Amino acid sequence: MIDADGVLADLRELARLTGGPGGARRVCWTDEWTAARDFLRSRLDELPVTVSVDEAGNIWADLPGEREDAVVVVGSHSDSVPAGGWLDGALGIYGAVGALRAQAANGKPPVSLRLVDWADEEGARFGRSLFGSSACAGTLDPDEVRDLLDKGGERLEDVVGRYDVALDRASESHARLANVRAYLELHIEQGPVLESRDEPAAAVLGTFGVERHLAVFTGQAAHAGATPMELRRDSFAATAQAALAIREIGLRHEGGVCTVGGATSEPGVVTAVAGRTEMLLDQRSLDADQLATMLDEARAACEQAAADQGCELDLRHLWRMRASRWWQRAARTPRSPAGRCTTPPRWRGCCRP
Amino acid sequence: MIDADGVLADLRELARLTGGPGGARRVCWTDEWTAARDFLRSRLDELPVTVSVDEAGNIWADLPGEREDAVVVVGSHSDSVPAGGWLDGALGIYGAVGALRAQAANGKPPVSLRLVDWADEEGARFGRSLFGSSACAGTLDPDEVRDLLDKGGERLEDVVGRYDVALDRASESHARLANVRAYLELHIEQGPVLESRDEPAAAVLGTFGVERHLAVFTGQAAHAGATPMELRRDSFAATAQAALAIREIGLRHEGGVCTVGGATSEPGVVTAVAGRTEMLLDQRSLDADQLATMLDEARAACEQAAADQGCELDLRHLWRMRASRWWQRAARTPRSPAGRCTTPPRWRGCCRP
Repeated sequence: MIDADGVLADLRELARLTGGPGGARRVCWTDEWTAARDFLRSRLDELPVTVSVDEAGNIWADLPGEREDAVVVVGSHSDSVPAGGWLDGALGIYGAVGALRAQAANGKPPVSLRLVDWADEEGARFGRSLFGSSACAGTLDPDEVRDLLDKGGERLEDVVGRYDVALDRASESHARLANVRAYLELHIEQGPVLESRDEPAAAVLGTFGVERHLAVFTGQAAHAGATPMELRRDSFAATAQAALAIREIGLRHEGGVCTVGGATSEPGVVTAVAGRTEMLLDQRSLDADQLATMLDEARAACEQAAADQGCELDLRHLWRMRASRWWQRAARTPRSPAGRCTTPPRWRGCCRP
Repeated sequence: MIDADGVLADLRELARLTGGPGGARRVCWTDEWTAARDFLRSRLDELPVTVSVDEAGNIWADLPGEREDAVVVVGSHSDSVPAGGWLDGALGIYGAVGALRAQAANGKPPVSLRLVDWADEEGARFGRSLFGSSACAGTLDPDEVRDLLDKGGERLEDVVGRYDVALDRASESHARLANVRAYLELHIEQGPVLESRDEPAAAVLGTFGVERHLAVFTGQAAHAGATPMELRRDSFAATAQAALAIREIGLRHEGGVCTVGGATSEPGVVTAVAGRTEMLLDQRSLDADQLATMLDEARAACEQAAADQGCELDLRHLWRMRASRWWQRAARTPRSPAGRCTTPPRWRGCCRP
């Protein structure tokens, strides 16, 4: 039985050390991140575990079990975005500490347990998330990240070097996955669903596929007083019409979401009809076919809005990520109790990135 | 008969001297404005007129007629906004020069003609339009403008002083209205109506009343991936719904216009539902009752949109100008030919400010 109060006490102490009214301050490759990791080490030092840091900067803590050829990894990430939630990442780290603590108190566990703190999961400093976990998984290409610059103009390779990470050896982290049978990460939900349903937890089914586009509506800038309504080619009206139609698309597709987070108009003043408006569109679904359908419908909605408001439309593709359903892949193996889903499929899905 | 080619030649020369690819550069109280006024003086020097500058910095040119107790004033303004239209103001100035030129060629006109070039009609440097004309009309309060600052931190009173305008004496300009029976200002239309109707000109009926408001919709910022559609309180969706409804209000009210020129959302990123969106609303009509009705309807539309999208609404009054119908006031006097309206009432109305 995990001591939940002990986990919460650790989390509160971490927040005291590296948090504040604006949120968590644990951006990776900074002194505050180091402070957070030092606190983690102080907690691990109380346990019968072997602590080490791998070639990608990930911290590992091993608790040997009856079987050393069967390892369950538990963990998350200590780093945060500049004003992060106090539980984002940290809950998984100190939940894992609590699991090790509980198992160690009961003697040797049936399988080995291994805690991991992934380095730079958020990518807040260099704009590249999942540094340590992708190096471990074998999907980090050093040449793609070597020359990334932070706001101060420092290179990623130079900065991680100061934390004893030799970029070209980071993928050697992969050896830590030997004998690993399962990975569990407890994470705070980043949406309101569980709370709204008064449910304590759910399992992640996979990662959403994402389609991101920029819609540019071009009409005619015109004087707000001197231009009659029916002669206007109003790019903001086109955007408003498209945004509402896109919201309906999201509502219509069970499990999908469509978001227009805002719009930017030119000239963008109270005395002028907007001549040009840019709108950012984000669509997500666990189902690739559904995502493709939502995108087709959004494109049609933008075209209709442009036509109705006398505007031109330029819909530009920005970014795409394929959906990944872990649950289906794992369907041949029996479900573990930890995998039991407590919510219907609709609102599961990891929200990263 | 006015020599239109001569007027156009003057306008083109002015544009060559003080214009460019970005538009007219004749912001008042600058060297470029002085250059524009020097060019005007060079044209007036060719005519049998008396040129003077009044206490508010307005230039006057008198062409005496058979009757000196009856004066018709013609003119406009040489100054422009920083990137103005080449005909805005200038058309009225050089049209007036053309009128004086034509009358002078025919000997003494039946009534006196007086050209005026109003100083700082646009207010581009200090944000206060109609400086010279309001001083002349008796509606300029020196204490309201004395300490206005430009972007460089200079005071209006100091700057106009360098152009020989003593602010506290500016209202003495009013004496120039003695014996004035009429004022005519030829101005380029700032909207597309005459062009769309293939009509050459129309008379201004009055000034639009204006209602300006800031609508602030507050919902809940939320993760675009992790927040299901039906749990969102999307301030941009509320804004889009309100903007479309407000457009319908403008279309429904013959003669009125309603404009939402854009919106600003927070956090305003592609990965988040907007938690707060500000929308600027401008409504205009020649008819005070119609304007009040349009405002009531816009308020109701904003409230409905906020309710439908689960948002709070804060509708803040920014600015109001009463409508003024010159035509009705002048109804007791016979219409002059120049006052003949060539377009139906719907789309007349001065667009300033």
